[in-house]
Amino acid sequence: MRVPIWVSNRHIHLTQADANTLFWWPNYELTKIKNLSQPWQFASEECVIIKWPKSEIAKVRVLWPYRKQTQVEVMKWDTIKLGTDAPIRESWDLKWSAPITVIWPKGQIELKEGMIVAKRHIHMTVADAQNFWVENGQIVKVRTNGERSLVFDEVVIRVSDSFALDMHIDIEEANAAALKQWDRWELILD
Amino acid sequence: MRVPIWVSNRHIHLTQADANTLFWWPNYELTKIKNLSQPWQFASEECVIIKWPKSEIAKVRVLWPYRKQTQVEVMKWDTIKLGTDAPIRESWDLKWSAPITVIWPKGQIELKEGMIVAKRHIHMTVADAQNFWVENGQIVKVRTNGERSLVFDEVVIRVSDSFALDMHIDIEEANAAALKQWDRWELILD
Repeated sequence: MRVPIWVSNRHIHLTQADANTLFWWPNYELTKIKNLSQPWQFASEECVIIKWPKSEIAKVRVLWPYRKQTQVEVMKWDTIKLGTDAPIRESWDLKWSAPITVIWPKGQIELKEGMIVAKRHIHMTVADAQNFWVENGQIVKVRTNGERSLVFDEVVIRVSDSFALDMHIDIEEANAAALKQWDRWELILD
Repeated sequence: MRVPIWVSNRHIHLTQADANTLFWWPNYELTKIKNLSQPWQFASEECVIIKWPKSEIAKVRVLWPYRKQTQVEVMKWDTIKLGTDAPIRESWDLKWSAPITVIWPKGQIELKEGMIVAKRHIHMTVADAQNFWVENGQIVKVRTNGERSLVFDEVVIRVSDSFALDMHIDIEEANAAALKQWDRWELILD
């Protein structure tokens, strides 16, 4: 009953329309630097700047593919640095999430909402869900070991046959548990 | 069975001798900006720069009082930024801890060891320890609530009548659990 860990840094998912505003020409093609854990996704060489009146953060990496809504995922520390706040949310649950300005040398977009701190979650296929005896949307716990061992609660299960099995946490969560990418930890059900 | 949380940012404890090297004159007096949770301790206005060949981090705050050995406490993210590593240790367990250079406009010190990532711990008096049924050095767990609830394991009990009751964690640990300063969470014994 173990799941591999994928550690995310801050990043952005863009719509085609927002990419057209930010990049040099329409249908600009992102340059892949690294495959992500989920099939067909990659991290691109391209980064944007996110800005709020108090300060800004550079090198927010753009992920492929483009999506239906632009979404910025940051760490809680980033929100403190920016001088704002962002709710802890699942992907695409963006209603009343935080506003943010996204800048790239050619253009700028003002998001009225779209910035979140990601809620930790596990991607899995329908077959994985049967093996683990869990269902889509269920909240589970994951137990880690080592010098900073802990039990993460509030981990959401997300089931789709387009997913690969992994648990997504951000750098702060990984560091709090002294975890590394591809560590495998134990999913526990109450 | 609840303990208040104290969240630490990166900081440095200096010896009088190292302070004499870094600051403008011997027996330079630090300027208090904030009392800490432990009695007689304060955060000073003074900050130093810590440096490793790959990069440096500014605004590492100096704490009062001076101590018998200079100790730098950073977060795991800081070690990645510096391009080095530091062990997870209790305070003053510095043997084979990480080397680091400490810089202040007047002087510079080269520590062969002294940089750690703090192991999470709870300070308490002898009377508190009796109330909680724990002893010095014991490892306990602490359960939090909320949107990022979790159970911290590997929390060390430290008992002394010179301590005030609190649990020390760093910003990454606080953010992973979405905790705030002075939240009170539950100590649990197996």
